[in-house]
Amino acid sequence: MIRKLLLTIGLMQVSAVHAQDAPIAHDAEYYILEAQHGEQWAEDDAAVDALLAEFQQKNGGKPPNILSILVDDMGFGDMGIPELNAVRGYATPNINQLSDEGMRMVRMYTEPSCTPTRVAQTTGRLPVRMGMGDTTVDISGFGLPGNEVTLAEVLKEGGYNTSHVGKWHMGDVAESWAMNQGFDYAQHAIHQQGQLTIFHDDAIREQVSVGLADFDPVYTLDDLFRPDASAMVTVVEGEAGGPVREIRMQAGERWTAAKYDEMNQAFQDKTVEELRRLAGESEPFFLQYWPMIPLDNTRAGRDGPDSPNGGLYADKMQLLDTWVGDLMTELKTLGIEDNTIVILMGDNGHFTKYAPQSGFTPMIYRGGKGDTTEGGVRVDAFIRWPGMIGADTMINNIIHVSDLFTTLSRIAGADQFIPRDRLVDGVDQSAALLFADESKGRRDHVIVYSISTPKAIVKDKLRLNLPGPGESPILAEFFDIFRDTHEKYPVSTEVGAWGGQEFVRILGRHMGRKEKYPDGPPAYGVPYEGIENLRPESQSAVEAFLLKRSSVEK
Amino acid sequence: MIRKLLLTIGLMQVSAVHAQDAPIAHDAEYYILEAQHGEQWAEDDAAVDALLAEFQQKNGGKPPNILSILVDDMGFGDMGIPELNAVRGYATPNINQLSDEGMRMVRMYTEPSCTPTRVAQTTGRLPVRMGMGDTTVDISGFGLPGNEVTLAEVLKEGGYNTSHVGKWHMGDVAESWAMNQGFDYAQHAIHQQGQLTIFHDDAIREQVSVGLADFDPVYTLDDLFRPDASAMVTVVEGEAGGPVREIRMQAGERWTAAKYDEMNQAFQDKTVEELRRLAGESEPFFLQYWPMIPLDNTRAGRDGPDSPNGGLYADKMQLLDTWVGDLMTELKTLGIEDNTIVILMGDNGHFTKYAPQSGFTPMIYRGGKGDTTEGGVRVDAFIRWPGMIGADTMINNIIHVSDLFTTLSRIAGADQFIPRDRLVDGVDQSAALLFADESKGRRDHVIVYSISTPKAIVKDKLRLNLPGPGESPILAEFFDIFRDTHEKYPVSTEVGAWGGQEFVRILGRHMGRKEKYPDGPPAYGVPYEGIENLRPESQSAVEAFLLKRSSVEK
Repeated sequence: MIRKLLLTIGLMQVSAVHAQDAPIAHDAEYYILEAQHGEQWAEDDAAVDALLAEFQQKNGGKPPNILSILVDDMGFGDMGIPELNAVRGYATPNINQLSDEGMRMVRMYTEPSCTPTRVAQTTGRLPVRMGMGDTTVDISGFGLPGNEVTLAEVLKEGGYNTSHVGKWHMGDVAESWAMNQGFDYAQHAIHQQGQLTIFHDDAIREQVSVGLADFDPVYTLDDLFRPDASAMVTVVEGEAGGPVREIRMQAGERWTAAKYDEMNQAFQDKTVEELRRLAGESEPFFLQYWPMIPLDNTRAGRDGPDSPNGGLYADKMQLLDTWVGDLMTELKTLGIEDNTIVILMGDNGHFTKYAPQSGFTPMIYRGGKGDTTEGGVRVDAFIRWPGMIGADTMINNIIHVSDLFTTLSRIAGADQFIPRDRLVDGVDQSAALLFADESKGRRDHVIVYSISTPKAIVKDKLRLNLPGPGESPILAEFFDIFRDTHEKYPVSTEVGAWGGQEFVRILGRHMGRKEKYPDGPPAYGVPYEGIENLRPESQSAVEAFLLKRSSVEK
Repeated sequence: MIRKLLLTIGLMQVSAVHAQDAPIAHDAEYYILEAQHGEQWAEDDAAVDALLAEFQQKNGGKPPNILSILVDDMGFGDMGIPELNAVRGYATPNINQLSDEGMRMVRMYTEPSCTPTRVAQTTGRLPVRMGMGDTTVDISGFGLPGNEVTLAEVLKEGGYNTSHVGKWHMGDVAESWAMNQGFDYAQHAIHQQGQLTIFHDDAIREQVSVGLADFDPVYTLDDLFRPDASAMVTVVEGEAGGPVREIRMQAGERWTAAKYDEMNQAFQDKTVEELRRLAGESEPFFLQYWPMIPLDNTRAGRDGPDSPNGGLYADKMQLLDTWVGDLMTELKTLGIEDNTIVILMGDNGHFTKYAPQSGFTPMIYRGGKGDTTEGGVRVDAFIRWPGMIGADTMINNIIHVSDLFTTLSRIAGADQFIPRDRLVDGVDQSAALLFADESKGRRDHVIVYSISTPKAIVKDKLRLNLPGPGESPILAEFFDIFRDTHEKYPVSTEVGAWGGQEFVRILGRHMGRKEKYPDGPPAYGVPYEGIENLRPESQSAVEAFLLKRSSVEK
């Protein structure tokens, strides 16, 4: 190994600079792997280039379309495996078919909740790098900075038409919104299901919310304490450089469970409409559809298809499956089935807080949304590209959601537009995908953050859950995640004795790299600024928020 | 439903007496379902009869051969699902193929450990009915009573040749052994892996055992305290009515890890040999192969195929898979692939006590071997019968391992030999299997015992974990096992308020039925009696056992 390492160090410059002037700046561990595998990677890169060129030649000189379907709060095993459908008591036949027609990325790691995962896919960077690790529910006055270079911006530079429909959840300040972050067109919610399924009258009636407005206001001194879905901006729509407007809400109107269903149906319908529009253009397209089901919290007179499980979660899972099936049918109808990459995956583990009502509980891995254990960050993930990515295949190497940024940019022939002035965490996994060869993966670890604190390190099959402040690293627990998916039985002290110091070094190198590429803040600003038709109640809610924010300055 | 119930009560006699003089006596819940579905069941029975007759006609007038492969201590999801192979970091391609060629019985329930599960399959009765709920490790002086009517005896009456190879573990008294319980030929261990992989010198050297003989004996007053694998009888062989001999051990010889491997290989080889012999006979055959892998506990210089997981468990899983593949190939070579039913399943959940070393940890369900939670009693279970049971099918209705007794007897055309003088827990599931229709199942509940105490009741999707003595049933926890496979989030109090009383009634009916059919004791006796070549050290071990047993009488 040492000899191989010495031999390849001389090739590092060549292999790292793939068809570009300057290499992408990665995190420290990348260079340790590159020193060992750079020569092979250079060969693989050439083979990938040849494959992509061949595809483009057959596809009228164009790279493939890309459809990203990112689903909320679904744990590993919820989709794509008929046997586990049976365990859960519902069926996802369309998604299972998508899985059969494509590849399962078994070890796809996300961030532990919605916002950071979406940021990592969008920017190719760990959310901590621009202070976007937190998932907020109501008005927060910050968001993804405009100076981040998004996947949409990279692909736009590469000649793509870009469109986004559904969830966004990367901030309530204007510069963070999709139409201001590289998308030609966007229709998206500003907040998330916390606002849209919890902070409204139906949820209060069903006692999904603890109280809110359903008690005698005489005991309330602070009317600004609790959020109200109807006062927040719900869904906005706009084009790049154009005006942004809230849609489907009138001044004084109350947000309801029925409106939530209506919104979801509208997102689905809009996605079909966008597919049709984009398929008619001469440029390739990048379409993000980030649905806001299956996560839901109120029943309020709803009904779903029958299943052995029944209930809200199963209903919405089966609805999601139907919608995914409809999109796949649409791709076929439009004749773009073979030149469109479809990526379907979850954004983090189950939202176990709602477990009793909904059935969002972990099966295979420990923990759920918000947890930095495997169950928080392991998701079902599929990629389908007929003829290019083997049908019914799996790869079991580690992939982080940020790798999609780099890999899709590469596949789109747009990786020269990935910025070189900042650290990019996402590595190029195209060789592993295209050759369905897990040994061609370019990552063997992830560092799992909770907001801004590293909480766990996974390296090949070992996982160290980092001790908290004041706890001894000697007693930190190591797990073998093949043998113990629920992180219950720490592996032997020998692994700890060696692994402890080695994992501390991994963390040290990761932190050391921040000296050259320091973490920055998110974009702070006035919420909802620039929305043309801001409702008076939303304006009041913004004022209440600003009052609270300024209270610390008194 | 009430109307349907009233309509069908008049038909109960007809539907219960399927082609026999007297109906099989079942537990109370059966009659509640029969009253609701008897008419449909009568129709289904006629259709099953027609299918079986058609098969026999094509098969030279004979019912199918039956090969039962019962594997030790494997939790749900360990076999048959490529995605979960990847999660575990090993591959079982041959077993996965068997799954693809047959049916997965998703809700197969066993008993929570080795002995009771094997008793339930063998007798069609809950082990508590003859005091066989306990799993012993060393010399115990009891076993399955000779007056139990075993599946082998029923099939023998029905014209089958019968053979058993591998684990047995239903007692160390002669009347309990396979060659005395309906098998024409048997070669089996008397005890189990506790003896064969823990109580020997290699295990002591590896510190698998805590101490045993590796400390200064000056501190040992009681030399009879600890067991010694070499002093116990290991594997016996014999024919029905003939002498029984211990094989592959000489007087004074020490049992070792190497001998354990040798024994397992010999079981596999003998199974292949038996398949060849039995295939050449004119009668159909019933062959049980109950391997003693993957469970193992010592490494001692062993090596296995490479896998991402590595280690003992993965090695042995892959070895098991190879062996299953070899048996399937042999079936094909012998031309009996299509007229042989193959049943492959686990006998209970993971042996979590050995988790840190081995990787025997639960993935999907809570708990392992010995636990009465789902993880203790839910296993992978496959049945393959080409042309009769649909390839790549699943059924999700509840099946208990005792149902195999009744169902296989029926399929073999031997159900008239099922005794009518005792309660039989196993119900006939042939319609569900042959029509791959889970709505045709004839059981919607299981009562899970730990040794002799009912600990849980599962009825359709609900599970009640029974409160212990002195605990209020009002606080007993209900779980929805589709929504919450790890039994972590009890379902709402409404279910408890209704379900509590209803589940108490289920238990009451079950206990009430024991007035007519009371539980009996196991067969007590002198261990190893009748073994022709009993080694002196085994004789001494028996004497030590008898001394201890008689000590309570002083």
